[in-house]
Amino acid sequence: MARKLKEVADFLQARLIGDGDVSVTGIASVQSATPGDLVFIQDEKNLDSALQSRASAIIVGKFAADKTYSKPVLITDDPRLAFARAAHLICPKPARVPGVHPSAIVHAGAKLGSVTVDERVVIAEGAEIADGTWIGAGCVIGRDVFIGEHCELHPNVTIYAGTRLANRVIVHAGSVLGSDGFGYARDPKTGRYEKFPQVGRLEIEDDVEIGANSTIDRGALIVTRIRRGTKLDNLVHVGHNVQIGTNVVIAAQAGLSGSAVIEDNVVIGGQVGIADHVRIEDGAVLGAQSGIPSKKIIRGKGVLFWGTPARPIRAYLKELALLARLAKKE
Amino acid sequence: MARKLKEVADFLQARLIGDGDVSVTGIASVQSATPGDLVFIQDEKNLDSALQSRASAIIVGKFAADKTYSKPVLITDDPRLAFARAAHLICPKPARVPGVHPSAIVHAGAKLGSVTVDERVVIAEGAEIADGTWIGAGCVIGRDVFIGEHCELHPNVTIYAGTRLANRVIVHAGSVLGSDGFGYARDPKTGRYEKFPQVGRLEIEDDVEIGANSTIDRGALIVTRIRRGTKLDNLVHVGHNVQIGTNVVIAAQAGLSGSAVIEDNVVIGGQVGIADHVRIEDGAVLGAQSGIPSKKIIRGKGVLFWGTPARPIRAYLKELALLARLAKKE
Amino acid sequence: MARKLKEVADFLQARLIGDGDVSVTGIASVQSATPGDLVFIQDEKNLDSALQSRASAIIVGKFAADKTYSKPVLITDDPRLAFARAAHLICPKPARVPGVHPSAIVHAGAKLGSVTVDERVVIAEGAEIADGTWIGAGCVIGRDVFIGEHCELHPNVTIYAGTRLANRVIVHAGSVLGSDGFGYARDPKTGRYEKFPQVGRLEIEDDVEIGANSTIDRGALIVTRIRRGTKLDNLVHVGHNVQIGTNVVIAAQAGLSGSAVIEDNVVIGGQVGIADHVRIEDGAVLGAQSGIPSKKIIRGKGVLFWGTPARPIRAYLKELALLARLAKKE
Repeated sequence: MARKLKEVADFLQARLIGDGDVSVTGIASVQSATPGDLVFIQDEKNLDSALQSRASAIIVGKFAADKTYSKPVLITDDPRLAFARAAHLICPKPARVPGVHPSAIVHAGAKLGSVTVDERVVIAEGAEIADGTWIGAGCVIGRDVFIGEHCELHPNVTIYAGTRLANRVIVHAGSVLGSDGFGYARDPKTGRYEKFPQVGRLEIEDDVEIGANSTIDRGALIVTRIRRGTKLDNLVHVGHNVQIGTNVVIAAQAGLSGSAVIEDNVVIGGQVGIADHVRIEDGAVLGAQSGIPSKKIIRGKGVLFWGTPARPIRAYLKELALLARLAKKE
Repeated sequence: MARKLKEVADFLQARLIGDGDVSVTGIASVQSATPGDLVFIQDEKNLDSALQSRASAIIVGKFAADKTYSKPVLITDDPRLAFARAAHLICPKPARVPGVHPSAIVHAGAKLGSVTVDERVVIAEGAEIADGTWIGAGCVIGRDVFIGEHCELHPNVTIYAGTRLANRVIVHAGSVLGSDGFGYARDPKTGRYEKFPQVGRLEIEDDVEIGANSTIDRGALIVTRIRRGTKLDNLVHVGHNVQIGTNVVIAAQAGLSGSAVIEDNVVIGGQVGIADHVRIEDGAVLGAQSGIPSKKIIRGKGVLFWGTPARPIRAYLKELALLARLAKKE
Repeated sequence: MARKLKEVADFLQARLIGDGDVSVTGIASVQSATPGDLVFIQDEKNLDSALQSRASAIIVGKFAADKTYSKPVLITDDPRLAFARAAHLICPKPARVPGVHPSAIVHAGAKLGSVTVDERVVIAEGAEIADGTWIGAGCVIGRDVFIGEHCELHPNVTIYAGTRLANRVIVHAGSVLGSDGFGYARDPKTGRYEKFPQVGRLEIEDDVEIGANSTIDRGALIVTRIRRGTKLDNLVHVGHNVQIGTNVVIAAQAGLSGSAVIEDNVVIGGQVGIADHVRIEDGAVLGAQSGIPSKKIIRGKGVLFWGTPARPIRAYLKELALLARLAKKE
């Protein structure tokens, strides 16, 4: 969508140096830019290559001097953030035409707003889907599921009965929401595992995004909950009864065991393992592959923890260095 | 389903103290209980809060004194196990009406008993499905697959040709059973990997439960096998030729490489990695994220192993403590 | 498919000792062989049991003496590789009849060659699929996807818009190709994560095989690329912008973060974690569960790295041994 740079500058509240009548029609990296593209650089050292690229304009930081360049520049506090926002303006998501594809099977007892339901979707009795939401091909929406406004479900997602998604939730292909938790009671006489009831629910708040092929279990007796603005990558596992706060980031293949509590603003690296009943307090950062043993509490806003069992990275690196040194001496 | 407490006590063979004519209609946690609910407590310290809850009755342990309380109590050896059983009585699974949804595509050469086949299921030639089984929407059942009685396949499960499931097997959404194993032979001249034949089968015995989005490979030339009563969580990987015994528990995101042997009663924590040709002997316990190198044998009923390479937890913790101490001295 | 041993010997360029008119009709392991089966042994120590098996013929190595045995033998440089090749001759994949199942939904603006499209497949506008390719039931092929010749997509695969697969690519059930990468820009004022554009593409070259329930993200602004002959196991995660070379092997549950570069001939063990912007150079081998921190370069053809952070295995094992020794002394 063609936008004059002047418009983009207004939208970003950025300072424009150069010709505001230049049009941008796309976004790109510096390396792949073609004429019409807007690009961004986060560091001053990349300014020259951006200027030499084929891009039509550049989002830069405060580091850019107050002078004119060979291309128009937009000066912002945070070029990467500004670029992400500009992308929404220049390349808005394609509008989806509301309507239910004739191959979709929607139960007469389901309530659909003005939604886009693609091929072969199955929607069960009692489900309710609000305006502006898209359900991709092959999704299966269970009984009494509620999905709010402007959600996007990519193809082949399965949502178990009773799950609730608020607004603007994005779920990537193949993910499973509201599946049974992993809970059994063992009979000491026979050694057999009896299934513990998994009759709670799953609730996901506004603006959550869930990657592809992730799995999020319903509560056993209570509600598994993911709060507003939290982002999960691909192949993430969230066990029953887990409580995840707002604006949490969880990288690919991390796993959260039953009843873990993740407070707001936590950052969880890839392949991190969090055992049952762990509490990760506000703003802690868990390095990739770290492991938190059962019932531990991790505390420390902005502190990076690493290793299994996870400890502050400074202590961990010191241990690693010492061990390497001792081994070398042998 | 309303049940008199007297009935529940008989079913559990529990001792009832209080009014046996009280009806229970649901199960809940102490925190979420409403009138009509049966709850349980595992520890005496929670007795007061359970008595003060809105629950109608409590399953307790032997710790409960032989006196009357403000609510009826059921005294059992193992409250959690008793609660799990009571749940089946009070909240039985909804009965599914047998029948094949008109949108399902069942090959004329498939044999179906009295089964429930949901929307958009595909069942190939030669498949056979026994009475009481439910196939959820979007499942794809390959050629010559056999599925026994009273199995439950949640939506969007894929079963490759020739796989056999016995009775009461539960498979959660998105799992893949019987896929090709990961086997190649490298041509030293060209560096190319030639696919090694993956023509074995997968057999799953009675009462196995498999979580969401898990993958279990067929054997290369033999049979991958999971024995009776074993439970797998979400996103678990089981490689070709693996043999898993009875009543094994495997937590989320654990991975078992080709030809591993897991004997009966083993407990495998989340994100555990088991290399090829490993043997885990009867009753061993592998802590979360631990790793077992190729061809190792892990032996020790009830012994907890941890770390990579996994060692008895006592030794592992001693090493960790020593290293931390030495590093602090520096 | 019955083949005379003579034919097999010619195909493999193997030396045949024994009766070339013997027919083989199947392949098997030594343990499971029945008459008509061809088996192989990699080590001389297994020769006796192979000779005593019910197999009709044996592929052996140079170790076999130049004499006659109780069964015909085929002498090759690499019995396992030869066996893999023979399997293609004796047990060719079942030919699929080209045609589009009436339940498939193919957009009028899609271009299909002579392909086999199974039940309930959805193919969007602008997609193009070349001759000899099979699309399994329930697959969803997005807009403008290109799929080359003789590919195999097992059921319930999802391919996002614009993804390109070359020829003879195999994708196992439930995998997701071309999903959005995990990229956000955080607004420091509100703490909210703004979605960073994920508008690049995914390209997969010839002869790549991808396991079940794996996820491969499109590039953010550029192209995620997997080169010729590379093999991925189940539940593997590949992040945005990742570049994977030729003949790379990636075992189950490994995860590659954004912008990682994996050069040719690398071997990546199960559950390995590779952080963002890492470079793994030609021919390096990463042991299972090892972890490579952000921006590291791993160099060393044929060198096995292990641990987190990964180091050459010799150094790592020395450290482990030293620590165990010190702890024991305590």
